[in-house]
Amino acid sequence: MLVVKIGGGESINLEACCADAAELVKARQRLVLVHGGSHQTNVLSQALGHPARFATSVSGYQSRYTDRRTLEIFCMAYAGQVNKRVVELLQARGVNALGLSGADGRLWEGERKAAIRIIEDGKKKILRDDYTGRVERVNSALLELLLGAGYLPVLCPPAISYQGELINVDGDRAAAATAAALKAEALILLTGAPGLLREFPDESTLIPHIPARQVEEFMPFAQGRMKKKVMGASEALAGGVRQVIFADGRIERPISRALEGAGTIIS
Amino acid sequence: MLVVKIGGGESINLEACCADAAELVKARQRLVLVHGGSHQTNVLSQALGHPARFATSVSGYQSRYTDRRTLEIFCMAYAGQVNKRVVELLQARGVNALGLSGADGRLWEGERKAAIRIIEDGKKKILRDDYTGRVERVNSALLELLLGAGYLPVLCPPAISYQGELINVDGDRAAAATAAALKAEALILLTGAPGLLREFPDESTLIPHIPARQVEEFMPFAQGRMKKKVMGASEALAGGVRQVIFADGRIERPISRALEGAGTIIS
Repeated sequence: MLVVKIGGGESINLEACCADAAELVKARQRLVLVHGGSHQTNVLSQALGHPARFATSVSGYQSRYTDRRTLEIFCMAYAGQVNKRVVELLQARGVNALGLSGADGRLWEGERKAAIRIIEDGKKKILRDDYTGRVERVNSALLELLLGAGYLPVLCPPAISYQGELINVDGDRAAAATAAALKAEALILLTGAPGLLREFPDESTLIPHIPARQVEEFMPFAQGRMKKKVMGASEALAGGVRQVIFADGRIERPISRALEGAGTIIS
Repeated sequence: MLVVKIGGGESINLEACCADAAELVKARQRLVLVHGGSHQTNVLSQALGHPARFATSVSGYQSRYTDRRTLEIFCMAYAGQVNKRVVELLQARGVNALGLSGADGRLWEGERKAAIRIIEDGKKKILRDDYTGRVERVNSALLELLLGAGYLPVLCPPAISYQGELINVDGDRAAAATAAALKAEALILLTGAPGLLREFPDESTLIPHIPARQVEEFMPFAQGRMKKKVMGASEALAGGVRQVIFADGRIERPISRALEGAGTIIS
């Protein structure tokens, strides 16, 4: 079992990711796809006059402030625009893809964190009415049901709170939780870079290998959104996934290239 | 088995429809929900500077001209905004809803009609690059799989072409095809009116009953979008569904009220 997360950055080559996934499925690789939609959400938010607002938590992680209107736009971009495009790209290649958000069938459940502590202009603040959370439970029975019937699950945020509210969750960490729940051999995170870079954005400084038990030590090299990917990698490994690969989602055959050894391999 | 289509008009009471559906599911009614998103698509199209364009076919039916950008907006509104809201409303009431578009798992398959003959300003024209079609095959095995595992399927357009392209299909007719495929006892179409009216929009002229074999004769009373609902009713009945009800989707307990005899019953 392989879990592949297709990043939501502007530079991601969605067509190449889907074409490669289709080839792997046809070669009988058991696979679950997860995708992002960050760039599309930003574009849509801007166009609808409700521009994205990012908050930095007191622990230094960046996340999208998700009020009710942002949540709605988030659903449009992730579950509507990107998810159905990915399903279409796969269906056109003969793969019976089936898209689900983490809310569907309580696939990804977690606690809503309605208030988050952030730092804005150097000051600590509390943001309320936030619809965010973290995936704590994965409905792996639903994924097994669909895989067993021959469908390729294509997953994306939002997730669902225990109270039944849609919540924005980090897709990388949700993919990590999914990989752990499915006892996947590997989790591949396709991003807009060739892997983790020692000196971002200098791509010649790619870190080719990180021993699993040292992953936390490499956190200082992660910039911006990459931090959550390193956190996700750490969580996946702790959950029993043997190998996590950060690989380039901008190129042709991105998944196959990662399996052939390209990118940053954490094992 | 009951198939309920929640209309996509502005006046539909989505909360009441979902609350009622949740009560029925808890009372062990086997149910599949289908929903629209026409109003939300119009609002979103307008906000994004790509306003909806409707075409009247030479046979007199109105449909949305769906170029590639409209298709994308259509997915945002139907599969993103409305579908996830319906799932959330049901999940918050303890029902394990699972949303799918007709493209997912090839749930609703049909032929894409890339060119449609229309009448504009009294002249016949051909519109090309249209992503529309009609549901010809329903993947009832997928619905049975989900129902058997305890999920409530929440379905919406788009569907998928045989070539794997997303296509805009009429939700009422898709619901009719779904009811026929599932051998449902009844199909309920919840709309922004109490049923079929002899003199639209005078609600005191409700037609309470139409004998199944006379449904086509009542077509002249159907205005605008109601025409496709009558067509859907006719198709569902021809497909073996015993009863089709046009009922009021603006009120409390809309499904239960329809089952108690309100609306226009075609049987």
